[in-house]
Amino acid sequence: MIVAMQEAATEEQIQSVIERMVELGFNVHRTTGAQQTILAGVGTPAHFDVHEFQVCSGVHEAYRISSPYKLAGRSFRPEGTIVRFANGVSIGGDEVVVMAGPCSVESREQILLSAQQVAASGAKFLRGGAFKPRSSPYSFQGMGLEGLKLLREVGDITGLLVISEVMEISQIELMLPYVDCFQVGARNMQNFNLLRELGYVRKPVLLKRGIAATIEEVLLSAEYILAGGNYDLVLCERGIRTFETYTRNTMDISAIPVLKKLTHLPVVADPSHGVGRRDMVPAMAFASVAAGADGLLMEMHPNPEKAFSDGAQSLFPQQLDKLMDGLRALAPVVGRYIAKPAYAL
Amino acid sequence: MIVAMQEAATEEQIQSVIERMVELGFNVHRTTGAQQTILAGVGTPAHFDVHEFQVCSGVHEAYRISSPYKLAGRSFRPEGTIVRFANGVSIGGDEVVVMAGPCSVESREQILLSAQQVAASGAKFLRGGAFKPRSSPYSFQGMGLEGLKLLREVGDITGLLVISEVMEISQIELMLPYVDCFQVGARNMQNFNLLRELGYVRKPVLLKRGIAATIEEVLLSAEYILAGGNYDLVLCERGIRTFETYTRNTMDISAIPVLKKLTHLPVVADPSHGVGRRDMVPAMAFASVAAGADGLLMEMHPNPEKAFSDGAQSLFPQQLDKLMDGLRALAPVVGRYIAKPAYAL
Amino acid sequence: MIVAMQEAATEEQIQSVIERMVELGFNVHRTTGAQQTILAGVGTPAHFDVHEFQVCSGVHEAYRISSPYKLAGRSFRPEGTIVRFANGVSIGGDEVVVMAGPCSVESREQILLSAQQVAASGAKFLRGGAFKPRSSPYSFQGMGLEGLKLLREVGDITGLLVISEVMEISQIELMLPYVDCFQVGARNMQNFNLLRELGYVRKPVLLKRGIAATIEEVLLSAEYILAGGNYDLVLCERGIRTFETYTRNTMDISAIPVLKKLTHLPVVADPSHGVGRRDMVPAMAFASVAAGADGLLMEMHPNPEKAFSDGAQSLFPQQLDKLMDGLRALAPVVGRYIAKPAYAL
Amino acid sequence: MIVAMQEAATEEQIQSVIERMVELGFNVHRTTGAQQTILAGVGTPAHFDVHEFQVCSGVHEAYRISSPYKLAGRSFRPEGTIVRFANGVSIGGDEVVVMAGPCSVESREQILLSAQQVAASGAKFLRGGAFKPRSSPYSFQGMGLEGLKLLREVGDITGLLVISEVMEISQIELMLPYVDCFQVGARNMQNFNLLRELGYVRKPVLLKRGIAATIEEVLLSAEYILAGGNYDLVLCERGIRTFETYTRNTMDISAIPVLKKLTHLPVVADPSHGVGRRDMVPAMAFASVAAGADGLLMEMHPNPEKAFSDGAQSLFPQQLDKLMDGLRALAPVVGRYIAKPAYAL
Repeated sequence: MIVAMQEAATEEQIQSVIERMVELGFNVHRTTGAQQTILAGVGTPAHFDVHEFQVCSGVHEAYRISSPYKLAGRSFRPEGTIVRFANGVSIGGDEVVVMAGPCSVESREQILLSAQQVAASGAKFLRGGAFKPRSSPYSFQGMGLEGLKLLREVGDITGLLVISEVMEISQIELMLPYVDCFQVGARNMQNFNLLRELGYVRKPVLLKRGIAATIEEVLLSAEYILAGGNYDLVLCERGIRTFETYTRNTMDISAIPVLKKLTHLPVVADPSHGVGRRDMVPAMAFASVAAGADGLLMEMHPNPEKAFSDGAQSLFPQQLDKLMDGLRALAPVVGRYIAKPAYAL
Repeated sequence: MIVAMQEAATEEQIQSVIERMVELGFNVHRTTGAQQTILAGVGTPAHFDVHEFQVCSGVHEAYRISSPYKLAGRSFRPEGTIVRFANGVSIGGDEVVVMAGPCSVESREQILLSAQQVAASGAKFLRGGAFKPRSSPYSFQGMGLEGLKLLREVGDITGLLVISEVMEISQIELMLPYVDCFQVGARNMQNFNLLRELGYVRKPVLLKRGIAATIEEVLLSAEYILAGGNYDLVLCERGIRTFETYTRNTMDISAIPVLKKLTHLPVVADPSHGVGRRDMVPAMAFASVAAGADGLLMEMHPNPEKAFSDGAQSLFPQQLDKLMDGLRALAPVVGRYIAKPAYAL
Repeated sequence: MIVAMQEAATEEQIQSVIERMVELGFNVHRTTGAQQTILAGVGTPAHFDVHEFQVCSGVHEAYRISSPYKLAGRSFRPEGTIVRFANGVSIGGDEVVVMAGPCSVESREQILLSAQQVAASGAKFLRGGAFKPRSSPYSFQGMGLEGLKLLREVGDITGLLVISEVMEISQIELMLPYVDCFQVGARNMQNFNLLRELGYVRKPVLLKRGIAATIEEVLLSAEYILAGGNYDLVLCERGIRTFETYTRNTMDISAIPVLKKLTHLPVVADPSHGVGRRDMVPAMAFASVAAGADGLLMEMHPNPEKAFSDGAQSLFPQQLDKLMDGLRALAPVVGRYIAKPAYAL
Repeated sequence: MIVAMQEAATEEQIQSVIERMVELGFNVHRTTGAQQTILAGVGTPAHFDVHEFQVCSGVHEAYRISSPYKLAGRSFRPEGTIVRFANGVSIGGDEVVVMAGPCSVESREQILLSAQQVAASGAKFLRGGAFKPRSSPYSFQGMGLEGLKLLREVGDITGLLVISEVMEISQIELMLPYVDCFQVGARNMQNFNLLRELGYVRKPVLLKRGIAATIEEVLLSAEYILAGGNYDLVLCERGIRTFETYTRNTMDISAIPVLKKLTHLPVVADPSHGVGRRDMVPAMAFASVAAGADGLLMEMHPNPEKAFSDGAQSLFPQQLDKLMDGLRALAPVVGRYIAKPAYAL
């Protein structure tokens, strides 16, 4: 930590700050300039809050120096993490892995058709929500356990891995037999109790960035899961809230290369939530892969105009096919590949 | 719902939109202008997503018209809601109710002293966190059940009501015997499962605005609680995230009068989280009451510089005293009052 | 400046950073910790860009320490600045000074009536725009020089000072004979050429915060004007752009006490632009004064529903009267006053 | 315009709104629902402000329906605009046009070397600032006219077109002989007087999005230039301000496909300002082209670590070369091309 004192700070104020730093466990190096005194705290005490110093009398500004995350930092695994799944698929390697499917599981017919279309496009994961508490209490709330079973069944039929969102601790046990990857939604990115439990699970987790979360906060949330011993973690950029209203969110494409620099964890992108309009999803999927994403998470529905939820941002099946063809051409330009579909309708 | 077609929309596109609106349960009134066709959907179907229409071909823009919340709307109780507590205190009436206390319960000694100081200032509620999962997994995480018991004990000693944060469904039962009001934190504002359960509880709830939540989203979250039958609900503005970094958040004081207009629920303000710096808390507390807040939620610590958490935004006891004196003078200017302290140190 | 090196930084990288710091004119103090090296640059070179260091190889983070503004800083005039006007009115003293009037001068009749109503309410300044380039090229663009003359005429009739917006350098000369204070609008807060010229003028300037400007950027813009020798400068908070859309902007009330702490310049608030809806203006005017504003800038129109521009946020004359009465009661609570009107209709 | 009345609106309130709509020039169609009355205003009066209706008594919400821009709308030129330059280069066609160069012209030697490196990379435009008012009055302010002459000279030597920023009306005449394209910076996007004058010029203009400007506001500003008769207009996404601080701005890549949908004007991207860090520029340049950008504007400096301004975001010459090679491979995937360099060092 660095504390820069005000020009007018008294020696008493300076001593008081030094004392508190020492008390917290810092070794303090003092630099006395002609105008300003600077205190460098060396060492990394377990407990300290840089904001505490910002309001101390005589302090101009205080800066935490060490990253507040450790296990998530790039230097912990400079070579990068590859998250491996049951059927040989892995995220973080050369393949750009696509996950697609409807927002919600609505019926066996709907999710089976979805799975077939997703598999035929060359995607590797089927996504679909079973628990769907929505912003309005009057909207469709999901099929629950029945939805999970359907996801597993149609995933197995089509050879797709299954990813679905977990929303509270009690759902973890329930979901374990049915999913290949837990998805933590944007609204739960700072549900630390849930994150801690997921750290104890031995199944991969995909953690979405919160709508108002800084990149550093994403990494702190990742730290919770890693600290429990679960290293099979994938991060996901899915748009942040800004003043622009034409798109549902503003997709922060730069978060992809920034995260790739700061952490060893794989990074995928969700252009469906990123923009919230299916007409903009293909361009943003292209941009994500061009910027270095390790994978994509996208909504597709056999009949988006009849979807129970998120229809506006769900691709038509033929749009997904066309997009996958384009991405298959794009990936090699950035040193990656997308395999041809192994499944045919 | 209103759908404005593009100038170049074809009759086929218009018919397709009308068909979908009718299918959803709208009666459609068509206005054909020289340049543009406008479709007004009358009626309020249970299920519809305005975004679906925004991406239909031929559509220029679509607007939901009816509020997506009903029980939370002002028109549901034009006279306003007053939330009444055990000892005669009520929020939403003429009194401006102050809630104060430390971020976390740290020890019996600390919370007892806090309660005494809070009571002596004239505040009516003791706040304090028992469950404190923090953004870093390496920070202090709270005293749990032991903390709840201490809150109750010292609350009873000093005649204060107790408010504490609930973070997951499993904590509700645990907390019920000890708190007078459940607090839902900003990060859980859209934890809809938790909100739904709190709707079934017969104890007041204080719901904080999420860091990136619009005012409409606050009201939708309130609707979840009201829909369960719990009408003893208080809303709380506590700052939103913007580009400004000098303050921890940007406190949206205008949300106070806006909420007072849109809903019948009482509205309190949390200047501590709103600005995150104790030197700015008094000015923001003043501003909140001047703008019509029904109460204040503030952090105070007997020794903020030694606080386990949020010390930077916690008032010194003597600051709280002085602030309460100022607020007691201010309240009558806006037709409210703050009672003199009934407790003395 | 402080440069914190990465844990893995090589000695060569460290030396390269030190070299560059010395080249820029810093004296460098090196702190070598067990994990991390920290370089403190003492001295304040005229030219340096902290971002340059943030992308140097081996650098973890770099922090500018010294404020980039000097003349605007509180320590330059700890006692505060009072800006004095022709007729004895001053901003920054004990009086809360109110400036009111229509968005635009529309006709002699309209501006005369406005001035009479403004004066009768007890406000001290008449505001009104003569040059009104609007966001749409098809909207009303202002009366120009004719508008300025009318402002002066009716200001003199009613004993009000006149404030009006200057938008480009060429207008300064034109406006000088007619206004008592130049207003720089939010869109021009970083029009540095204009600011520099206003620094050479010997007439007070009111500088509005830009819609996306940080508080530090406001102070840097102030520095431009002060650097030219014009110390009669007043700052104005008028709302920033956030994700919230119910209000036109989000008024950052906390900017008022923050600016009062960081600078010696007086700070006024513009609730009309801050919220953009007349029904919320009174509450925000109250909040501004309660938070320590030295004055208010508000829109009022004799007939807001017929206003050429900004009618939605313009108060009715009787609303202004009532609001002034309320503010007159509020001001003493924060140690200020608002004089009774000296003019009667 | 659509006005949705409140459920409780009285007939008198409804009549008053209808009256005002008719007065403004609308034909009003009334839809009386069981719960709510909706008024559709048909026709497009020159003067009206939708906000005026939002605060009328009895009104629930009001929506402008027609786009406030006309000439900038896609329907005005559905086939798209191609802006053609002197030497056969055109923006908006199949070629992705790259513009590169230093932030500021610093000396003849620096700008000549820059131009040679830019030309050798295959870029078509040399960018460089001659007028550089900076956020601090104490920073380097540019070489002025001398800088313009140097840009022209080295542009001619290397066969590059020249683009430079214009900051006020008086500079237009001065710059006309030296530049091939005027650049309007983010801070001037709503300097409507300047935009209007540029509408009368017969030379292409590149208009950057403001740091807090919505996409609609970009198009309204474009409208100012088009309304003057200058159709040689290129738009530029360059990042918006959000809460994220790791990058200087958050580059809104989705603005590229959105603008391509809403307007006929070409759209280029400036990843240098978009992220503000050279290590992220290549990924964002890739993303921009993948998302459909018609060109790129980037900062490159022969020696970024010695640059007078914006060094942190300026590419090294060899980085630009490598990036251009990558982009040349990427462009065909999205149906575009980048020509090989015609100039060799």
